[in-house]
Amino acid sequence: MKQKLTVVKVGGKIVETPHSLELLLQGFARLDGPKVLVHGGGRTATDMATRLGIETHMVEGRRITDEAMLRVVSMVYGGLVNKNVVARLQAAGVNALGLTGADMDIIRSHRRPVRDGIDFGFVGDVDRVDADRLALLLESGVVPVVAPLTHDGQGNLLNTNADTMAGEVAKALAQHFDVTLVYCFEHNGVLAQADDEKSVIPLITPEIFQRLKAEGVVSGGMLPKLENCLAAVEAGVGRVVITRADALGNGCGTRIALA
Amino acid sequence: MKQKLTVVKVGGKIVETPHSLELLLQGFARLDGPKVLVHGGGRTATDMATRLGIETHMVEGRRITDEAMLRVVSMVYGGLVNKNVVARLQAAGVNALGLTGADMDIIRSHRRPVRDGIDFGFVGDVDRVDADRLALLLESGVVPVVAPLTHDGQGNLLNTNADTMAGEVAKALAQHFDVTLVYCFEHNGVLAQADDEKSVIPLITPEIFQRLKAEGVVSGGMLPKLENCLAAVEAGVGRVVITRADALGNGCGTRIALA
Repeated sequence: MKQKLTVVKVGGKIVETPHSLELLLQGFARLDGPKVLVHGGGRTATDMATRLGIETHMVEGRRITDEAMLRVVSMVYGGLVNKNVVARLQAAGVNALGLTGADMDIIRSHRRPVRDGIDFGFVGDVDRVDADRLALLLESGVVPVVAPLTHDGQGNLLNTNADTMAGEVAKALAQHFDVTLVYCFEHNGVLAQADDEKSVIPLITPEIFQRLKAEGVVSGGMLPKLENCLAAVEAGVGRVVITRADALGNGCGTRIALA
Repeated sequence: MKQKLTVVKVGGKIVETPHSLELLLQGFARLDGPKVLVHGGGRTATDMATRLGIETHMVEGRRITDEAMLRVVSMVYGGLVNKNVVARLQAAGVNALGLTGADMDIIRSHRRPVRDGIDFGFVGDVDRVDADRLALLLESGVVPVVAPLTHDGQGNLLNTNADTMAGEVAKALAQHFDVTLVYCFEHNGVLAQADDEKSVIPLITPEIFQRLKAEGVVSGGMLPKLENCLAAVEAGVGRVVITRADALGNGCGTRIALA
């Protein structure tokens, strides 16, 4: 039987609120066994860009990344957010190591081609994750903290969506481990009623997903998120959990699994 | 006999000029055997601070690092400079890994106490370097690229001078390797006549240093630099070389050794 491993994705809203981040890191530090943290930082990047007089353009929730914006996200994701999370995890007794895809060539990507007239600029779509190298680190007790940056192998950093990074890392590590992928956000889980935090849907299987979709219970931005989660479990990730950041490790939230 | 290892320090002036950086990285990529790159980035940090409306204060060539400036150096050193160097080394076939002192707890420091009424703020003086962990990485073919940031083990990043970092890393690794420490800068070496690039002093031993100092041949900022180099060789570093960035690995420059 494979050893259990947890991949946790935490988004900008939590990373950028000191109190929420502290709770998240405490919860993450308490998780047993090998683990990986993947973080965002989009709000800080947007704020920093604004302070530098650089306009932020988003298309379908994704950041258009020109050269100036690439410098901003390299600084904010790779430096400011990543290294502070690493230092705080070290203080909590976790042997954290901050990584972008370029470090040890962990995650290689290619620049997204122009489609439908939209050029996302220096945005990378993941080609491969070096699961062997990550597994070696994990087996030596190191806890990777992954910033949403990849590289193309030709010297260019690329901006890659953190949710996607977490999914790709989880899928690759499923070769070595029994993986649980946890998406932390500000709600208790996937809600049946958007305004009722008690209406958490406990389990979503491919069958349940089709029903929820047909009934219109899940819609909008949650649809592609759940499709990604289902793709991850279909690719070998044991289970995906969507939960509140401060409930990490409590067994709460929505569980996405094949059955 | 110990295996040879090279620790290269490259300063801001070179890191921040694309052409100089490219030459430096090409030279670094060609160096045989295990190696470590330690970089600065002070000029970019100063520029970024200015763009963000943050004033830079220096005392004796060292940056006063308040909270706002710590954010700037965390971004610039840990993200912008470090990750771009890593990506470019990867493109040159070097399996680079970007590190601050916080990553894997590689370099622990304490906040510099207020002395003579000068509070440097979030500046760290190095307490220890985890040479065993670095040696493990080096033995697995990984090339550490070290940003001038350390941590205090209590969750705080600290700004640490890159020359000092390089010296401390070289001294610690001297337990495992026969270390050559190379300081790359814009001159051919330590010059006997400041305006004559052909007047490189080829060798400086402790004895020669005393003579050069008494004769006034070396003075000013070069004195503490050379004292640091001599301290490194006295602490077990095989030799220190001060040379032009684009002459890395050519055997040029000034060699500082015990004899």
